[in-house]
Amino acid sequence: MKQVRAELLTIGDEILYGQIIDTNSQWMSVALTNIGVKVVRKTSVADSEAEILQAFKEAEERADIILITGGLGPTNDDLTKPCLATYFNCGLAVHEEALAEVTEFFKSRGRELTELNRLQAALPTACEKITNPVGTAPGMWFNKDNKVFMSMPGVPHEMKRMMEEQVIPRLKNKFTLPVIYHKIIRTIGQGESFLADKIKGWENALPSHVKLAYLPSLGEVKLRLTCFGDSLSVLEEEAEKQATALQALIGQYIYGYGETPIEVVIGNMLRERNMTLSIAESCTGGNVSHMITSVPGSSEYFQGSIVPYSYDIKMSQLGVKEETLQQYGAVSEQTIIEMATLVREKFKTSIGVATSGIAGPGGATPEKPVGTVWIALADGKRVITKKLQLAKERHLNIQLSSMAVLNLIRIGIKESTGNTQKTAT
Amino acid sequence: MKQVRAELLTIGDEILYGQIIDTNSQWMSVALTNIGVKVVRKTSVADSEAEILQAFKEAEERADIILITGGLGPTNDDLTKPCLATYFNCGLAVHEEALAEVTEFFKSRGRELTELNRLQAALPTACEKITNPVGTAPGMWFNKDNKVFMSMPGVPHEMKRMMEEQVIPRLKNKFTLPVIYHKIIRTIGQGESFLADKIKGWENALPSHVKLAYLPSLGEVKLRLTCFGDSLSVLEEEAEKQATALQALIGQYIYGYGETPIEVVIGNMLRERNMTLSIAESCTGGNVSHMITSVPGSSEYFQGSIVPYSYDIKMSQLGVKEETLQQYGAVSEQTIIEMATLVREKFKTSIGVATSGIAGPGGATPEKPVGTVWIALADGKRVITKKLQLAKERHLNIQLSSMAVLNLIRIGIKESTGNTQKTAT
Repeated sequence: MKQVRAELLTIGDEILYGQIIDTNSQWMSVALTNIGVKVVRKTSVADSEAEILQAFKEAEERADIILITGGLGPTNDDLTKPCLATYFNCGLAVHEEALAEVTEFFKSRGRELTELNRLQAALPTACEKITNPVGTAPGMWFNKDNKVFMSMPGVPHEMKRMMEEQVIPRLKNKFTLPVIYHKIIRTIGQGESFLADKIKGWENALPSHVKLAYLPSLGEVKLRLTCFGDSLSVLEEEAEKQATALQALIGQYIYGYGETPIEVVIGNMLRERNMTLSIAESCTGGNVSHMITSVPGSSEYFQGSIVPYSYDIKMSQLGVKEETLQQYGAVSEQTIIEMATLVREKFKTSIGVATSGIAGPGGATPEKPVGTVWIALADGKRVITKKLQLAKERHLNIQLSSMAVLNLIRIGIKESTGNTQKTAT
Repeated sequence: MKQVRAELLTIGDEILYGQIIDTNSQWMSVALTNIGVKVVRKTSVADSEAEILQAFKEAEERADIILITGGLGPTNDDLTKPCLATYFNCGLAVHEEALAEVTEFFKSRGRELTELNRLQAALPTACEKITNPVGTAPGMWFNKDNKVFMSMPGVPHEMKRMMEEQVIPRLKNKFTLPVIYHKIIRTIGQGESFLADKIKGWENALPSHVKLAYLPSLGEVKLRLTCFGDSLSVLEEEAEKQATALQALIGQYIYGYGETPIEVVIGNMLRERNMTLSIAESCTGGNVSHMITSVPGSSEYFQGSIVPYSYDIKMSQLGVKEETLQQYGAVSEQTIIEMATLVREKFKTSIGVATSGIAGPGGATPEKPVGTVWIALADGKRVITKKLQLAKERHLNIQLSSMAVLNLIRIGIKESTGNTQKTAT
């Protein structure tokens, strides 16, 4: 089977000036990789006719699929459409269906169609119009010698809708693509090299049609299995088998699969068990609560938090004892035990967790350098505490502590409800 | 003066697979634009010798400066160094000074130098080594026919240090660059089109050597003035004059200049006035506290927060009256007034602020659709309240509400301390 190759072309001065970060091409890379298309190059060029036409030509030489984003606005500096018309040697004309769609788009929002908006319905006559259900600039699909040029808006959510609903199905239909199955295994609590060491025997024994990638990010490591073959059901089974083998090796660090992040997994665990959560967060300053409440429906299990940033508030609002703070300091096992226990009692929740640490850059002592963090979980039967020695940088310490607390909640729920096996497999 | 052109070349399969977002090239674009170098293209290619060599050739045809990141690791799939050696027709040899540096790097961290690490000191003999003060892979500078190839590690903080301390000064030295002065004016509280309308007369009258760009992001709009000329001091004066003119037009929305975000500006305002802050945040779920505490030294003015996510916690921990919640609901002016007033009293701070709203997707009623948010500030003399009608999407509502509260704190401090003029000019 011939490999199908794609090039991603981003058009716009704002990219070259660094005014925006191009997140589109990363998203498109993942979408194409997932269907077995190989992305061979990403190119960004300015709003310049000569540069754009040159980039079209080069891309056509390299790739079978050329996906273009940006430069579709109605103003003069948006050149993608006239350049496509030149490249495909055709004119620009108002597309009646596109005009009806853009008119309807404005009407449904109670807005008047301006002359500038009307221009958005003018398309190169050589293209097939692709409907934009969430914006005013239609997409354009061009066939040329078994190759495809596809132009999309640069607005991320418009591009994504168009890719998911129309471009990906059309590409699958037009090209003969390999059968690929991806499985992402999400781990937390250990770094990449620790995991690599634990699973190296398994990794070395992987069959050649199964590839493993480590995808580390702040506080977690995702493992991605990519299986190549002829039958999707066979590959799914293969991936399941390998994931089961991983369970036996590193199961205690695996918190989930696919695209579901730890805060959602924890939310589901709490909801399923009718458990509730409260948080006393000092060094994380509200970030753990923010992560928990970023999940829709979190009010079902999250009661609330206290961020007791000062000694006074730790005492007056949470009830930490003055003697404890004076004798051991705020960043100590004694204080963190009180914080987790007290927030759970005050908020009347199944679980209370707490953080206290030196996020930096100030506040360090010889015994407690920047990055020293205590976390704890109280569930009414016992208190689990953990001391972390993290990074030098404030932002990292906040993020890493937050991930560590979320992991502690996961572990605490599993242990307190006694069904480790159920959750871990 | 001939325009100096740059191309940014990113090497690595992980970019084309979409495993990482390339933030380096955005940062480098800004750094180059700031010194008057025009970025004409960004290119990402795979870890493939043929692709890399082809990309070198194309970039040399287009640009005077070719900045390369990535592909410098010690493993087999890192091909940048052998490709550079091939392209510049030279060998790879251990660079003694580079070896001393990498040895020292490991020694200072108490780690042993492995054979793989030793390889990082092998460089193409045609290059000048550029020291990497924070990592193990040195940079490489190549001169060719008045053009420059510069290869740097892909690790963002290593690349940035190398760019700031060595590459930018060398480029300024080697090329004749225009004199450019940038001034960023940061606004909050109004959207791009509102501001554009307010300042259009001023904008249209700008001299041709002064350019304006709108840089909108969540909840704020930055205006960037770029002045071109011969003398830096003249341009600085010109930019100051234009910024003063903007003050007269939109001064109430201007919160600062340059790279300083709103949470730092607020922190400075509080610190200067010896004021303290507490927060009761419901719909923002901890995010406002997180933003405030992301600033080093925030413990000087931030006492703490309550995140009273449930009705129960609003009553038991904050003291909101049951009648208020029952009669008006949690998302109401009556409740938000109590929240801001109570958190200020309980935490004994100069200012107390509060948020309560329907972040979505659930919880809406016909009278209170998703995106309905109340915010308030209490300072002991009065309570300022504001109702917002924001977006449909949870994440946006949390971010936009947070920015609106930070702006309310800014306004509240200015008004309560009565020196609007001092802060606004």
